Amino acid sequence: MRIGKIIGTVTATRKDERLVGFKLLLTQPYVNGQAKGEPLVAVDTVGAGIGEIVLYATGSASRHAANKPQSPIDASIVGIIDSIDVAD
Amino acid sequence: MRIGKIIGTVTATRKDERLVGFKLLLTQPYVNGQAKGEPLVAVDTVGAGIGEIVLYATGSASRHAANKPQSPIDASIVGIIDSIDVAD
Amino acid sequence: MRIGKIIGTVTATRKDERLVGFKLLLTQPYVNGQAKGEPLVAVDTVGAGIGEIVLYATGSASRHAANKPQSPIDASIVGIIDSIDVAD
Amino acid sequence: MRIGKIIGTVTATRKDERLVGFKLLLTQPYVNGQAKGEPLVAVDTVGAGIGEIVLYATGSASRHAANKPQSPIDASIVGIIDSIDVAD
Amino acid sequence: MRIGKIIGTVTATRKDERLVGFKLLLTQPYVNGQAKGEPLVAVDTVGAGIGEIVLYATGSASRHAANKPQSPIDASIVGIIDSIDVAD
Repeated sequence: MRIGKIIGTVTATRKDERLVGFKLLLTQPYVNGQAKGEPLVAVDTVGAGIGEIVLYATGSASRHAANKPQSPIDASIVGIIDSIDVAD
Repeated sequence: MRIGKIIGTVTATRKDERLVGFKLLLTQPYVNGQAKGEPLVAVDTVGAGIGEIVLYATGSASRHAANKPQSPIDASIVGIIDSIDVAD
Repeated sequence: MRIGKIIGTVTATRKDERLVGFKLLLTQPYVNGQAKGEPLVAVDTVGAGIGEIVLYATGSASRHAANKPQSPIDASIVGIIDSIDVAD
Repeated sequence: MRIGKIIGTVTATRKDERLVGFKLLLTQPYVNGQAKGEPLVAVDTVGAGIGEIVLYATGSASRHAANKPQSPIDASIVGIIDSIDVAD
Repeated sequence: MRIGKIIGTVTATRKDERLVGFKLLLTQPYVNGQAKGEPLVAVDTVGAGIGEIVLYATGSASRHAANKPQSPIDASIVGIIDSIDVAD
Protein backbone atom coordinates (compact mmCIF):
# COMPACT_ATOMS: atom_id res chain seq x y z
CA MET A 1 0.00 0.00 0.00
CA ARG A 2 1.09 3.56 -0.41
CA ILE A 3 0.50 6.63 1.72
CA GLY A 4 -1.65 9.40 0.27
CA LYS A 5 -3.47 12.57 1.19
CA ILE A 6 -7.10 13.13 0.20
CA ILE A 7 -6.99 16.45 -1.63
CA GLY A 8 -10.38 16.53 -3.32
CA THR A 9 -13.22 14.72 -5.00
CA VAL A 10 -14.22 13.88 -8.55
CA THR A 11 -17.73 13.83 -9.98
CA ALA A 12 -18.63 11.69 -12.98
CA THR A 13 -22.29 11.30 -13.85
CA ARG A 14 -21.61 9.02 -16.77
CA LYS A 15 -19.54 6.12 -15.54
CA ASP A 16 -19.37 2.35 -15.27
CA GLU A 17 -22.37 1.29 -13.18
CA ARG A 18 -20.14 -0.65 -10.79
CA LEU A 19 -18.63 2.66 -9.67
CA VAL A 20 -22.04 4.05 -8.64
CA GLY A 21 -22.36 4.60 -4.90
CA PHE A 22 -18.65 5.02 -4.24
CA LYS A 23 -17.07 8.33 -3.29
CA LEU A 24 -14.31 9.06 -5.80
CA LEU A 25 -11.46 10.60 -3.85
CA LEU A 26 -8.61 12.55 -5.41
CA THR A 27 -5.61 11.09 -3.61
CA GLN A 28 -2.07 12.41 -3.90
CA PRO A 29 1.01 10.40 -2.91
CA TYR A 30 2.27 11.65 0.45
CA VAL A 31 6.02 11.36 0.97
CA ASN A 32 8.09 12.82 3.81
CA GLY A 33 5.15 14.82 5.06
CA GLN A 34 4.38 16.35 1.69
CA ALA A 35 1.69 15.60 -0.89
CA LYS A 36 3.25 15.52 -4.33
CA GLY A 37 3.11 13.83 -7.70
CA GLU A 38 0.21 12.81 -9.90
CA PRO A 39 -3.00 12.36 -7.92
CA LEU A 40 -5.09 9.29 -8.62
CA VAL A 41 -8.78 8.69 -8.11
CA ALA A 42 -9.50 6.02 -5.50
CA VAL A 43 -12.83 4.68 -4.29
CA ASP A 44 -13.43 5.12 -0.59
CA THR A 45 -13.95 1.93 1.42
CA VAL A 46 -13.27 3.26 4.92
CA GLY A 47 -15.08 6.59 5.25
CA ALA A 48 -12.09 8.84 4.50
CA GLY A 49 -12.47 12.60 4.19
CA ILE A 50 -10.72 15.61 2.72
CA GLY A 51 -7.31 16.30 4.23
CA GLU A 52 -6.85 12.88 5.77
CA ILE A 53 -3.68 10.85 5.38
CA VAL A 54 -4.60 7.39 4.16
CA LEU A 55 -3.37 4.02 3.02
CA TYR A 56 -4.35 3.18 -0.53
CA ALA A 57 -4.06 0.00 -2.54
CA THR A 58 -3.86 -0.35 -6.30
CA GLY A 59 -4.53 -3.12 -8.79
CA SER A 60 -6.61 -6.18 -8.00
CA ALA A 61 -6.10 -5.55 -4.26
CA SER A 62 -8.30 -2.49 -4.58
CA ARG A 63 -11.18 -4.54 -5.93
CA HIS A 64 -11.00 -6.88 -2.98
CA ALA A 65 -11.04 -3.82 -0.72
CA ALA A 66 -14.28 -2.73 -2.38
CA ASN A 67 -15.66 -6.29 -2.36
CA LYS A 68 -16.14 -5.93 -6.11
CA PRO A 69 -13.67 -8.36 -7.71
CA GLN A 70 -15.35 -8.04 -11.13
CA SER A 71 -15.36 -4.23 -11.29
CA PRO A 72 -13.29 -1.56 -13.06
CA ILE A 73 -11.81 -0.36 -9.77
CA ASP A 74 -8.00 -0.15 -9.73
CA ALA A 75 -7.42 2.04 -6.64
CA SER A 76 -9.08 2.09 -3.20
CA ILE A 77 -8.58 3.80 0.13
CA VAL A 78 -8.07 0.94 2.63
CA GLY A 79 -7.13 2.70 5.88
CA ILE A 80 -6.91 6.04 7.62
CA ILE A 81 -3.47 6.63 9.09
CA ASP A 82 -3.19 7.67 12.75
CA SER A 83 0.58 7.92 12.84
CA ILE A 84 3.69 7.29 10.82
CA ASP A 85 6.65 6.41 12.99
CA VAL A 86 10.00 6.69 11.25
CA ALA A 87 12.95 5.19 13.13
CA ASP A 88 15.89 7.44 13.96
CA MET B 1 -8.19 5.21 -11.66
CA ARG B 2 -6.34 8.07 -13.23
CA ILE B 3 -7.54 11.24 -14.90
CA GLY B 4 -6.92 11.64 -18.61
CA LYS B 5 -7.84 13.74 -21.61
CA ILE B 6 -8.96 12.16 -24.87
CA ILE B 7 -6.61 13.66 -27.43
CA GLY B 8 -7.20 11.46 -30.45
CA THR B 9 -7.95 8.06 -31.90
CA VAL B 10 -5.96 5.12 -33.20
CA THR B 11 -6.85 2.90 -36.14
CA ALA B 12 -5.55 -0.65 -36.40
CA THR B 13 -7.03 -2.90 -39.08
CA ARG B 14 -4.96 -5.88 -38.08
CA LYS B 15 -5.50 -6.53 -34.39
CA ASP B 16 -6.60 -9.09 -31.86
CA GLU B 17 -10.21 -9.98 -32.69
CA ARG B 18 -11.32 -9.23 -29.15
CA LEU B 19 -10.49 -5.56 -29.76
CA VAL B 20 -12.85 -5.36 -32.75
CA GLY B 21 -15.81 -3.06 -32.15
CA PHE B 22 -14.12 -0.90 -29.53
CA LYS B 23 -13.12 2.71 -30.14
CA LEU B 24 -9.41 2.99 -29.41
CA LEU B 25 -8.91 6.34 -27.70
CA LEU B 26 -5.58 8.09 -27.36
CA THR B 27 -5.67 9.20 -23.73
CA GLN B 28 -3.10 11.45 -22.11
CA PRO B 29 -2.65 11.74 -18.33
CA TYR B 30 -4.25 14.99 -17.15
CA VAL B 31 -2.62 16.57 -14.11
CA ASN B 32 -3.29 20.01 -12.62
CA GLY B 33 -5.41 20.99 -15.60
CA GLN B 34 -2.80 19.98 -18.16
CA ALA B 35 -2.50 16.95 -20.44
CA LYS B 36 1.05 15.67 -20.33
CA GLY B 37 3.17 12.56 -20.43
CA GLU B 38 3.00 9.43 -22.58
CA PRO B 39 -0.50 8.88 -24.01
CA LEU B 40 -1.92 5.39 -23.81
CA VAL B 41 -4.57 3.72 -25.93
CA ALA B 42 -7.71 2.86 -23.98
CA VAL B 43 -10.89 1.18 -25.15
CA ASP B 44 -14.00 3.25 -24.71
CA THR B 45 -16.70 1.75 -22.48
CA VAL B 46 -18.73 4.91 -21.72
CA GLY B 47 -19.14 6.82 -24.99
CA ALA B 48 -16.29 9.27 -24.47
CA GLY B 49 -15.26 11.74 -27.17
CA ILE B 50 -12.35 13.89 -28.24
CA GLY B 51 -11.42 16.59 -25.74
CA GLU B 52 -13.26 15.07 -22.81
CA ILE B 53 -11.69 14.64 -19.39
CA VAL B 54 -12.15 11.06 -18.29
CA LEU B 55 -11.44 8.44 -15.67
CA TYR B 56 -9.44 5.52 -16.97
CA ALA B 57 -8.51 2.21 -15.40
CA THR B 58 -5.55 0.01 -16.22
CA GLY B 59 -4.69 -3.65 -15.77
CA SER B 60 -7.30 -6.33 -15.11
CA ALA B 61 -9.76 -3.65 -13.95
CA SER B 62 -9.96 -2.44 -17.55
CA ARG B 63 -11.07 -5.86 -18.77
CA HIS B 64 -13.90 -5.93 -16.26
CA ALA B 65 -14.89 -2.46 -17.49
CA ALA B 66 -15.14 -3.86 -21.02
CA ASN B 67 -16.86 -7.04 -19.78
CA LYS B 68 -14.10 -8.99 -21.52
CA PRO B 69 -12.09 -10.64 -18.74
CA GLN B 70 -10.26 -12.93 -21.20
CA SER B 71 -9.16 -10.22 -23.64
CA PRO B 72 -5.91 -8.35 -24.37
CA ILE B 73 -7.34 -5.08 -23.01
CA ASP B 74 -5.16 -3.37 -20.39
CA ALA B 75 -6.68 0.15 -20.37
CA SER B 76 -10.29 1.36 -20.51
CA ILE B 77 -12.17 4.62 -20.17
CA VAL B 78 -14.59 4.06 -17.25
CA GLY B 79 -16.13 7.49 -16.65
CA ILE B 80 -16.51 10.99 -18.02
CA ILE B 81 -15.57 13.60 -15.45
CA ASP B 82 -17.99 16.45 -14.75
CA SER B 83 -15.88 18.21 -12.17
CA ILE B 84 -12.69 17.91 -10.17
CA ASP B 85 -12.95 19.63 -6.81
CA VAL B 86 -9.62 20.24 -5.13
CA ALA B 87 -9.82 21.33 -1.48
CA ASP B 88 -8.23 24.63 -0.51
CA MET C 1 -2.36 -0.54 -24.47
CA ARG C 2 0.65 1.49 -25.40
CA ILE C 3 2.10 2.46 -28.75
CA GLY C 4 5.47 1.00 -29.71
CA LYS C 5 7.84 0.59 -32.61
CA ILE C 6 9.35 -2.79 -33.46
CA ILE C 7 13.08 -2.11 -33.51
CA GLY C 8 14.53 -5.61 -33.50
CA THR C 9 14.35 -9.19 -32.38
CA VAL C 10 15.74 -11.25 -29.54
CA THR C 11 16.97 -14.84 -29.71
CA ALA C 12 16.96 -17.09 -26.66
CA THR C 13 17.64 -20.78 -27.17
CA ARG C 14 17.26 -21.61 -23.52
CA LYS C 15 13.89 -20.33 -22.36
CA ASP C 16 10.62 -21.31 -20.75
CA GLU C 17 9.00 -23.89 -23.05
CA ARG C 18 5.80 -21.87 -23.21
CA LEU C 19 7.70 -19.15 -25.08
CA VAL C 20 8.74 -21.57 -27.83
CA GLY C 21 7.21 -20.74 -31.20
CA PHE C 22 6.68 -17.05 -30.52
CA LYS C 23 8.67 -14.32 -32.21
CA LEU C 24 10.26 -12.20 -29.50
CA LEU C 25 10.09 -8.61 -30.70
CA LEU C 26 12.15 -5.78 -29.28
CA THR C 27 9.55 -3.04 -28.89
CA GLN C 28 10.31 0.53 -27.95
CA PRO C 29 7.69 2.96 -26.64
CA TYR C 30 6.71 5.36 -29.42
CA VAL C 31 5.64 8.82 -28.27
CA ASN C 32 5.02 11.88 -30.42
CA GLY C 33 6.40 10.15 -33.48
CA GLN C 34 9.61 9.09 -31.79
CA ALA C 35 10.78 5.74 -30.40
CA LYS C 36 12.37 6.29 -27.01
CA GLY C 37 12.84 4.80 -23.58
CA GLU C 38 13.62 1.25 -22.46
CA PRO C 39 12.59 -1.33 -25.07
CA LEU C 40 10.74 -4.39 -23.86
CA VAL C 41 10.47 -7.83 -25.39
CA ALA C 42 6.93 -8.68 -26.51
CA VAL C 43 5.62 -11.84 -28.11
CA ASP C 44 4.05 -11.34 -31.50
CA THR C 45 0.39 -12.34 -31.82
CA VAL C 46 -0.53 -10.43 -34.99
CA GLY C 47 2.31 -10.92 -37.49
CA ALA C 48 4.14 -7.67 -36.81
CA GLY C 49 7.47 -6.89 -38.43
CA ILE C 50 10.51 -4.70 -38.01
CA GLY C 51 9.79 -0.98 -38.26
CA GLU C 52 6.05 -1.27 -37.72
CA ILE C 53 4.16 0.88 -35.23
CA VAL C 54 2.11 -1.36 -33.00
CA LEU C 55 -0.22 -1.59 -30.05
CA TYR C 56 1.17 -3.63 -27.20
CA ALA C 57 -0.40 -4.87 -24.00
CA THR C 58 1.34 -5.74 -20.76
CA GLY C 59 0.51 -7.86 -17.74
CA SER C 60 -2.16 -10.55 -17.74
CA ALA C 61 -3.76 -8.94 -20.81
CA SER C 62 -0.75 -10.05 -22.83
CA ARG C 63 -1.30 -13.69 -21.88
CA HIS C 64 -4.89 -13.53 -23.08
CA ALA C 65 -3.59 -12.03 -26.33
CA ALA C 66 -1.33 -15.06 -26.74
CA ASN C 67 -4.09 -17.44 -25.62
CA LYS C 68 -1.68 -18.72 -22.97
CA PRO C 69 -3.16 -17.61 -19.64
CA GLN C 70 -0.79 -19.90 -17.66
CA SER C 71 2.44 -18.75 -19.33
CA PRO C 72 5.33 -16.46 -18.38
CA ILE C 73 4.32 -13.89 -21.01
CA ASP C 74 3.95 -10.33 -19.68
CA ALA C 75 3.99 -8.33 -22.95
CA SER C 76 2.37 -8.97 -26.35
CA ILE C 77 1.89 -7.14 -29.62
CA VAL C 78 -1.90 -6.97 -30.09
CA GLY C 79 -2.36 -4.73 -33.13
CA ILE C 80 -0.59 -3.03 -36.02
CA ILE C 81 -1.39 0.66 -36.15
CA ASP C 82 -2.57 2.16 -39.44
CA SER C 83 -2.94 5.72 -38.22
CA ILE C 84 -2.78 7.84 -35.12
CA ASP C 85 -5.10 10.83 -35.33
CA VAL C 86 -4.38 13.53 -32.79
CA ALA C 87 -7.06 16.23 -32.47
CA ASP C 88 -6.05 19.85 -33.03
CA MET D 1 10.93 -8.96 -5.57
CA ARG D 2 12.68 -5.80 -4.64
CA ILE D 3 15.13 -5.00 -1.86
CA GLY D 4 13.99 -2.62 0.87
CA LYS D 5 14.90 -1.32 4.28
CA ILE D 6 12.37 -1.22 7.10
CA ILE D 7 12.45 2.38 8.23
CA GLY D 8 9.37 2.61 10.40
CA THR D 9 5.81 1.58 11.13
CA VAL D 10 2.37 2.90 10.34
CA THR D 11 -0.66 2.84 12.63
CA ALA D 12 -4.18 2.89 11.23
CA THR D 13 -7.05 2.19 13.63
CA ARG D 14 -9.68 2.49 10.95
CA LYS D 15 -8.82 0.11 8.15
CA ASP D 16 -10.04 -2.78 6.09
CA GLU D 17 -10.68 -5.65 8.50
CA ARG D 18 -8.48 -7.99 6.46
CA LEU D 19 -5.47 -5.85 7.42
CA VAL D 20 -6.10 -6.36 11.15
CA GLY D 21 -3.36 -8.37 12.86
CA PHE D 22 -0.62 -7.48 10.39
CA LYS D 23 2.29 -5.22 11.24
CA LEU D 24 2.33 -2.40 8.69
CA LEU D 25 5.97 -1.72 7.89
CA LEU D 26 7.24 1.42 6.23
CA THR D 27 9.63 0.02 3.65
CA GLN D 28 11.97 2.09 1.51
CA PRO D 29 13.61 0.79 -1.68
CA TYR D 30 17.25 -0.04 -0.93
CA VAL D 31 19.62 0.39 -3.86
CA ASN D 32 23.43 0.25 -3.82
CA GLY D 33 23.47 0.18 -0.03
CA GLN D 34 21.22 3.22 0.33
CA ALA D 35 17.54 3.56 1.22
CA LYS D 36 15.93 6.04 -1.13
CA GLY D 37 12.74 6.84 -2.98
CA GLU D 38 9.11 6.70 -1.94
CA PRO D 39 8.54 4.31 0.95
CA LEU D 40 5.61 1.94 0.72
CA VAL D 41 3.65 0.20 3.43
CA ALA D 42 4.04 -3.58 3.37
CA VAL D 43 2.50 -6.19 5.63
CA ASP D 44 4.99 -8.31 7.51
CA THR D 45 4.84 -12.06 6.84
CA VAL D 46 8.29 -13.07 8.13
CA GLY D 47 8.86 -11.26 11.44
CA ALA D 48 10.91 -8.39 10.07
CA GLY D 49 11.99 -5.49 12.27
CA ILE D 50 13.14 -1.90 12.07
CA GLY D 51 16.44 -1.44 10.24
CA GLU D 52 16.41 -4.81 8.54
CA ILE D 53 17.10 -5.24 4.84
CA VAL D 54 14.32 -7.28 3.32
CA LEU D 55 12.81 -8.74 0.18
CA TYR D 56 9.37 -7.42 -0.61
CA ALA D 57 6.81 -8.44 -3.19
CA THR D 58 4.08 -6.31 -4.71
CA GLY D 59 0.80 -7.01 -6.46
CA SER D 60 -1.05 -10.29 -6.21
CA ALA D 61 2.18 -12.02 -5.12
CA SER D 62 1.95 -10.12 -1.85
CA ARG D 63 -1.49 -11.56 -1.12
CA HIS D 64 -0.20 -15.08 -1.60
CA ALA D 65 2.63 -14.23 0.79
CA ALA D 66 0.06 -13.23 3.39
CA ASN D 67 -2.15 -16.23 2.56
CA LYS D 68 -4.98 -13.76 1.96
CA PRO D 69 -5.71 -13.94 -1.77
CA GLN D 70 -9.00 -12.00 -1.38
CA SER D 71 -7.58 -9.09 0.64
CA PRO D 72 -6.61 -5.48 -0.09
CA ILE D 73 -2.92 -6.25 0.42
CA ASP D 74 -0.64 -5.13 -2.43
CA ALA D 75 2.79 -5.27 -0.75
CA SER D 76 4.34 -7.81 1.66
CA ILE D 77 7.71 -8.48 3.23
CA VAL D 78 8.63 -12.00 2.08
CA GLY D 79 12.21 -12.47 3.30
CA ILE D 80 14.94 -11.03 5.49
CA ILE D 81 18.18 -10.62 3.56
CA ASP D 82 21.39 -12.06 5.04
CA SER D 83 23.69 -10.94 2.25
CA ILE D 84 23.74 -9.34 -1.15
CA ASP D 85 26.62 -10.56 -3.26
CA VAL D 86 27.38 -8.42 -6.27
CA ALA D 87 29.79 -9.93 -8.80
CA ASP D 88 32.93 -8.02 -9.64
CA MET E 1 9.47 -9.30 -20.70
CA ARG E 2 12.42 -7.07 -20.08
CA ILE E 3 16.12 -7.57 -20.69
CA GLY E 4 18.38 -7.80 -17.66
CA LYS E 5 21.89 -8.71 -16.60
CA ILE E 6 22.52 -11.05 -13.69
CA ILE E 7 24.85 -9.08 -11.45
CA GLY E 8 24.77 -11.07 -8.24
CA THR E 9 22.85 -13.20 -5.78
CA VAL E 10 20.87 -12.63 -2.62
CA THR E 11 20.78 -14.89 0.43
CA ALA E 12 17.81 -14.91 2.78
CA THR E 13 17.62 -17.65 5.40
CA ARG E 14 14.32 -16.46 6.79
CA LYS E 15 11.85 -16.24 3.94
CA ASP E 16 8.49 -17.43 2.69
CA GLU E 17 8.72 -21.22 2.42
CA ARG E 18 7.55 -21.10 -1.21
CA LEU E 19 10.81 -19.33 -2.11
CA VAL E 20 12.93 -22.20 -0.73
CA GLY E 21 14.90 -24.01 -3.41
CA PHE E 22 15.02 -21.12 -5.85
CA LYS E 23 18.18 -19.20 -6.66
CA LEU E 24 17.52 -15.53 -5.97
CA LEU E 25 19.28 -13.58 -8.69
CA LEU E 26 20.07 -9.89 -8.52
CA THR E 27 19.01 -8.71 -11.96
CA GLN E 28 19.64 -5.25 -13.34
CA PRO E 29 17.74 -3.80 -16.32
CA TYR E 30 20.00 -3.92 -19.38
CA VAL E 31 19.40 -1.17 -21.93
CA ASN E 32 21.54 -0.31 -24.96
CA GLY E 33 24.25 -2.69 -23.84
CA GLN E 34 24.45 -1.26 -20.35
CA ALA E 35 23.15 -2.52 -17.00
CA LYS E 36 21.56 0.35 -15.13
CA GLY E 37 18.75 1.28 -12.79
CA GLU E 38 17.39 -0.44 -9.70
CA PRO E 39 18.18 -4.16 -9.63
CA LEU E 40 15.39 -6.52 -8.69
CA VAL E 41 15.54 -10.01 -7.24
CA ALA E 42 14.20 -12.66 -9.60
CA VAL E 43 13.89 -16.39 -9.09
CA ASP E 44 15.78 -18.48 -11.60
CA THR E 45 13.71 -20.87 -13.70
CA VAL E 46 16.17 -21.52 -16.55
CA GLY E 47 19.59 -22.09 -14.97
CA ALA E 48 20.94 -18.57 -15.46
CA GLY E 49 24.31 -17.52 -14.07
CA ILE E 50 26.27 -14.44 -13.10
CA GLY E 51 27.00 -12.11 -16.00
CA GLU E 52 24.40 -13.55 -18.33
CA ILE E 53 21.94 -11.39 -20.26
CA VAL E 54 18.46 -12.68 -19.65
CA LEU E 55 14.76 -12.20 -20.24
CA TYR E 56 12.79 -11.64 -17.08
CA ALA E 57 9.08 -11.45 -16.45
CA THR E 58 7.31 -9.66 -13.64
CA GLY E 59 3.92 -9.93 -11.98
CA SER E 60 1.71 -13.00 -12.22
CA ALA E 61 3.62 -14.11 -15.35
CA SER E 62 6.60 -14.80 -13.12
CA ARG E 63 4.61 -17.20 -10.97
CA HIS E 64 3.57 -19.19 -14.02
CA ALA E 65 7.24 -19.30 -15.03
CA ALA E 66 8.05 -20.86 -11.66
CA ASN E 67 4.99 -23.12 -11.80
CA LYS E 68 3.94 -21.67 -8.45
CA PRO E 69 0.79 -19.65 -9.15
CA GLN E 70 0.00 -19.34 -5.42
CA SER E 71 3.43 -18.07 -4.33
CA PRO E 72 4.92 -14.69 -3.38
CA ILE E 73 7.06 -14.62 -6.53
CA ASP E 74 6.75 -11.42 -8.59
CA ALA E 75 9.84 -11.68 -10.82
CA SER E 76 11.42 -14.64 -12.66
CA ILE E 77 14.18 -15.24 -15.16
CA VAL E 78 12.46 -16.89 -18.13
CA GLY E 79 15.16 -17.06 -20.81
CA ILE E 80 18.86 -16.64 -21.49
CA ILE E 81 19.48 -14.30 -24.39
CA ASP E 82 21.78 -15.43 -27.21
CA SER E 83 21.53 -12.29 -29.30
CA ILE E 84 19.74 -8.98 -29.54
CA ASP E 85 19.37 -7.84 -33.12
CA VAL E 86 18.50 -4.18 -33.50
CA ALA E 87 17.44 -3.09 -36.99
CA ASP E 88 19.40 -0.33 -38.68
